[in-house]
Amino acid sequence: MAPHERRNDLIRSALRVFAHCPPGDVSPEEIAAEAGVSRALVYRYFPNMAELRRAALEQAMDELLAQLDPPEDLPPLEQIRVALRTFLSFTHSYAPAYPALLGGGSAIATEETECEVNRVRKGVRDLLLERTGVEEPSPQLSLAIRCWIASVETAVMLWLSAPVMERNTLADWLLDQFVAMASAAGGPKEELEHLVARLG
Amino acid sequence: MAPHERRNDLIRSALRVFAHCPPGDVSPEEIAAEAGVSRALVYRYFPNMAELRRAALEQAMDELLAQLDPPEDLPPLEQIRVALRTFLSFTHSYAPAYPALLGGGSAIATEETECEVNRVRKGVRDLLLERTGVEEPSPQLSLAIRCWIASVETAVMLWLSAPVMERNTLADWLLDQFVAMASAAGGPKEELEHLVARLG
Repeated sequence: MAPHERRNDLIRSALRVFAHCPPGDVSPEEIAAEAGVSRALVYRYFPNMAELRRAALEQAMDELLAQLDPPEDLPPLEQIRVALRTFLSFTHSYAPAYPALLGGGSAIATEETECEVNRVRKGVRDLLLERTGVEEPSPQLSLAIRCWIASVETAVMLWLSAPVMERNTLADWLLDQFVAMASAAGGPKEELEHLVARLG
Repeated sequence: MAPHERRNDLIRSALRVFAHCPPGDVSPEEIAAEAGVSRALVYRYFPNMAELRRAALEQAMDELLAQLDPPEDLPPLEQIRVALRTFLSFTHSYAPAYPALLGGGSAIATEETECEVNRVRKGVRDLLLERTGVEEPSPQLSLAIRCWIASVETAVMLWLSAPVMERNTLADWLLDQFVAMASAAGGPKEELEHLVARLG
């Protein structure tokens, strides 16, 4: 394999391992075994596990953002529902690793994690605005969207540790919260009317 | 001073310094100067700055929880409004230190910070349930409250870095979000009716 292919292969192997095991419990040996290479080769590309975790997080977030692309011919509300279901499926597929990768007692450098998380937050915000046809959100709507994204993050973390609802039920619940929060945001009247028309 | 008084005095001095300066930029010398003692004395009580920050965070959270006690003779909605204003004043008084103390690239051990933050979250949740007279919240209402608390945390962080609204306007805004989120939570009909009656 070419170096960049080998590197990608190791990252993908790490992500497969993280789908079953929290990153803190994973050794370079396990990654090597999953990739079918030697421990030394893992270390050649990733001198320490923190770097491999960082690369895996980046790759996972790239995948997530690429997946968050609901069919544009659906009504906006349904597009958001599809995106939420995709997001929940994604987090569920990395359930053991997700909370650890995204902070919450994680050993990863928090600044890098925060930077990756902010990239996804921005991606989600842009998607919401694009699909609801809002070009310049008011400060109130911007804040409501940011708070809703925080709500989604929180609900997902709680759901992964104690699934009190079915996956699609949680997606619907979060969609209801989005409509409620955006409607209560108190931006300009035209913005609210536009949103109600698009999400109604 | 007795040892526990001296210790408390150093923590209070640290909090006064943190009201003007993020913890990462504060040296033991500054704490010593603020407390009017020697650097050696600071080190006798707190061998490293991380321990002093941890103690300061704990003390600040104790103060916050003690302050979150709105007059019980107000209607429940007004009690929450008062508590929100208190919370915003509190965060504002520690504005330079608040984001750093509560994570977000902080150098503090994240597990200890998370534990302190969870203590405050639980305190806020208990206060909300007590003052709205909900004894056993449904899973849906519990989730909405948890998501609302995350929204408050997020809104406050954004507000401290870029105050797009006045303090009391933000408190009102967050209260509107609470009512919207609790109303859209979709718990049992009686719970919603009870909440509407108490918050209406």
